[in-house]
Amino acid sequence: MSPLEPLVRLVPVQAQPPSLGDNTADLDRLRRALLRPLQDRWPLTPLTRAGLVAERFRQAGFAGLAVVNDLAVGPELVDFLPERPAHLAAMALDLGTTHLEASLLDLLTGRCLARATRENPQIEFGADILARIHFAARAGNGAGEDGLNILHSRIIAAINELAVDLAGKALMQAADIRALAVAGNTTMVHFFLRLNTYHLCREPYIPQVNAPDPFRAGELGLGIHPAATVWVLPSVGSYFGGDLIAGILASGLDQSEKTCMLIDVGTNAEVVVGNRDWLVACAGAAGPALEGGVARMGMRAEPGAIEHLEIDPESGALSYATIGGSAARGICGSGIIDLVAGFYLARLIDIRGKFRPTRAVAPGRFIEQPDGLAFVVVPASESASGRPVLLSQVDLDALMRSKAAMYAILSTLVNQVGLSFNQLHRIYVAGAFGGHIDPRQAIILGMLPDLPLEIYQPVGNSSLAGAEGILVDRGLRQRCHEVVRKITYIELNVNQEFMSRFSGSRFIPHTDHALFPSVPFFSET
Amino acid sequence: MSPLEPLVRLVPVQAQPPSLGDNTADLDRLRRALLRPLQDRWPLTPLTRAGLVAERFRQAGFAGLAVVNDLAVGPELVDFLPERPAHLAAMALDLGTTHLEASLLDLLTGRCLARATRENPQIEFGADILARIHFAARAGNGAGEDGLNILHSRIIAAINELAVDLAGKALMQAADIRALAVAGNTTMVHFFLRLNTYHLCREPYIPQVNAPDPFRAGELGLGIHPAATVWVLPSVGSYFGGDLIAGILASGLDQSEKTCMLIDVGTNAEVVVGNRDWLVACAGAAGPALEGGVARMGMRAEPGAIEHLEIDPESGALSYATIGGSAARGICGSGIIDLVAGFYLARLIDIRGKFRPTRAVAPGRFIEQPDGLAFVVVPASESASGRPVLLSQVDLDALMRSKAAMYAILSTLVNQVGLSFNQLHRIYVAGAFGGHIDPRQAIILGMLPDLPLEIYQPVGNSSLAGAEGILVDRGLRQRCHEVVRKITYIELNVNQEFMSRFSGSRFIPHTDHALFPSVPFFSET
Repeated sequence: MSPLEPLVRLVPVQAQPPSLGDNTADLDRLRRALLRPLQDRWPLTPLTRAGLVAERFRQAGFAGLAVVNDLAVGPELVDFLPERPAHLAAMALDLGTTHLEASLLDLLTGRCLARATRENPQIEFGADILARIHFAARAGNGAGEDGLNILHSRIIAAINELAVDLAGKALMQAADIRALAVAGNTTMVHFFLRLNTYHLCREPYIPQVNAPDPFRAGELGLGIHPAATVWVLPSVGSYFGGDLIAGILASGLDQSEKTCMLIDVGTNAEVVVGNRDWLVACAGAAGPALEGGVARMGMRAEPGAIEHLEIDPESGALSYATIGGSAARGICGSGIIDLVAGFYLARLIDIRGKFRPTRAVAPGRFIEQPDGLAFVVVPASESASGRPVLLSQVDLDALMRSKAAMYAILSTLVNQVGLSFNQLHRIYVAGAFGGHIDPRQAIILGMLPDLPLEIYQPVGNSSLAGAEGILVDRGLRQRCHEVVRKITYIELNVNQEFMSRFSGSRFIPHTDHALFPSVPFFSET
Repeated sequence: MSPLEPLVRLVPVQAQPPSLGDNTADLDRLRRALLRPLQDRWPLTPLTRAGLVAERFRQAGFAGLAVVNDLAVGPELVDFLPERPAHLAAMALDLGTTHLEASLLDLLTGRCLARATRENPQIEFGADILARIHFAARAGNGAGEDGLNILHSRIIAAINELAVDLAGKALMQAADIRALAVAGNTTMVHFFLRLNTYHLCREPYIPQVNAPDPFRAGELGLGIHPAATVWVLPSVGSYFGGDLIAGILASGLDQSEKTCMLIDVGTNAEVVVGNRDWLVACAGAAGPALEGGVARMGMRAEPGAIEHLEIDPESGALSYATIGGSAARGICGSGIIDLVAGFYLARLIDIRGKFRPTRAVAPGRFIEQPDGLAFVVVPASESASGRPVLLSQVDLDALMRSKAAMYAILSTLVNQVGLSFNQLHRIYVAGAFGGHIDPRQAIILGMLPDLPLEIYQPVGNSSLAGAEGILVDRGLRQRCHEVVRKITYIELNVNQEFMSRFSGSRFIPHTDHALFPSVPFFSET
């Protein structure tokens, strides 16, 4: 790991006290003393901090530690401490559509002090991004706020609660948090900054702001230290946000000699391909099936979720493992992929993803529901709730659309940059999806290309990891803007090639078998 | 005059509208379009303006005029206008201890749109600076604010009223004012910025802040445009403020090949000597006599003030002229100097400045008052109030201290830089004092050195002129900080040479006649 070059640092200062022969003002005396350690860059001081910093410098006897934000435009002096604190805390935040994940780092050591997570409270106003964008456009009535203000204040409140959580775990106060780095998709960042989201979902899909300048927490009513710098990772477009930029940084895609790919799958699938010389990106709606947002028994990868699952193709016997080993509460994305791949190999579904209830291997597993056929994954007697865990034809159809969209996105992108899949050195798989999914099962479904399994590398929550990197690594902060400049973004929402590839991908594994030599093909006759 | 390089400018922009092939965010599109006119300096945008600017850029059809602040750290984008306004208004402010003087400039043309003045409402809490510093230290009680907050909010309110005045005269709104440049003494600037003044008047006389960074008006609750840049002229020390820096800039002292001097006399006398290579400054208490603050009939140079006055040395006949020509209300600083010089030449006072009531030339002019002898300058029958305009021995003593302090300051400074008065090319006389005073009368008193009269040049309210320059001239904004770096400040409050020179200066014109060859000397015997 490179030496710490954090977003906020403590600079030791030992200045001559004022005298009749040296009547420089307290603040200017401090800034003069900082010139050498700051390589002759004069630090700016915001008006709201000037008097306070001067006062604390004097009270400390003109010696101690200056708190300096490291901004691209120059250093910013925001506080003065008489002695070295135990920690210099900073918060990294993955601002997700469904969940916020955060960590507290000590910028003196780079060590993680605490982690915390919390549901995005905006879910109350819309499960998916589109619903929230529509809610945001709601005008305020006489009594209350408009939709955007409601979404904004909810997210700020949730971040403040996370800050209190994190600080409590580290035996600190939220006001001790001196920096915040935020990675989120473009829409979430707009809600966070109270920006208008109206055009995000309307052709040609234009954000208000891609690259917000760093600001101070007090300007947004955040409950951390008011002079904490808030550093928001920039986005490239409406569907390619700072969370993805964070993923590129965390995976090192932008520094790789060999061409690699980064896939981040949530409700949207965002994909980047490239190397240290070029980066091309696209994004498309993958449907929420993989986040557990559609399947009625779907859930996030949390305790009680069926994470992995196997069906014996001969006997139809089904075995599964839940996260934490407790009784099953539902199925997460990776479990659903395993399940459907198992269905296919046991021929419980056909190549269009339709149930084949006549198959003898799973007697009693199919039941009729008001909206059609469903498969009993876990009987009521074994489940946590006392009700069966089911996967319905409706759920299955949603997954088929998701997997088709995913493969169509990947193949369109690779084709548009003039490559084929086997020229990729690595495929990094990010997001909750990436940490749990078994690439082999995804290949069987025809969701991921049929490549040697070692090509696939999970990178976990790279959005949070990227935000953490921003807090401790100046090089990363610079790379961040270089990446944004370097990325070419291809809009898929109106791409004809994508649409035709999508059609071919709606079968298991694909209409073109030659693309998936490792996957068995069953004639339907 | 150099071409306008104003603190705020309108930059014409004509950008390509967004499309699927160019999905840059609205704000970033605008900033990209600004790169060329801003010489490749990426403009920062404060969080509070980002959404608004993006919105207005879009509403204007991606063409119009960007409002850009020209800051030392780089350009700052704060607004967008669909079309060129009639004016781009900015306010210059001389933040004086007794009066605020302001002007409204049009930054499109450099033309003055309006002028306004107003008493400093802080006078209610202390006539002089020292009294206000003591008031500022008063702690808040349960119900109310502390002294500093009271002084601060009063001055902000007064500036807001001035802004409304100015804007009204130019048929605009105060919120149309897009920049504010402020020149004031160090204490006034501290009150303006709500900085602690405690140490300003205590050895070694240290300000909290000498060089505040520009900030936005909204941060201070000013009633002009919230994104207006507020540019405060820096100070050098507690007794050498931005008003003097403004004077140096306005007189061009810092660019002169030949060594010159700048004198600014208010309650304090502040003096700078130097040229384009070096600048040495000092300041000392001159007493408020010259601002009309002590003499009971003293007043500012306003309508009804006796501005000039003559006494026939033979007959004792007294003639005077008031400002505006109305009946006399009192005497301003220049009138008092004329009066006392006339007293001396008519031998109505001795060389110590004591009345000689036995002189036969002014029968009936002397009257006894509870605190001693007084001279009737204007009889009750001629005055505006129906009461006589008097000058008492107590007033005269105060003036003698002021004039002695002034000459001691000037001679100490010149001596400390190794020069003599006749090596000065020009002496610029600034402040209300400078505009009205007759240097010849001041020489007779021994207040100013005995030099050819053409050496003396009044520069009017150079504090306001300097603030105006900051608004329109980038070179001046840069020179401002160079001047601050270049000035060597000599503290006179504890200077032994000053004290001994002060003693010799307490006579008219001086104990050492040779210093004032042009002034007649009267033997006291």
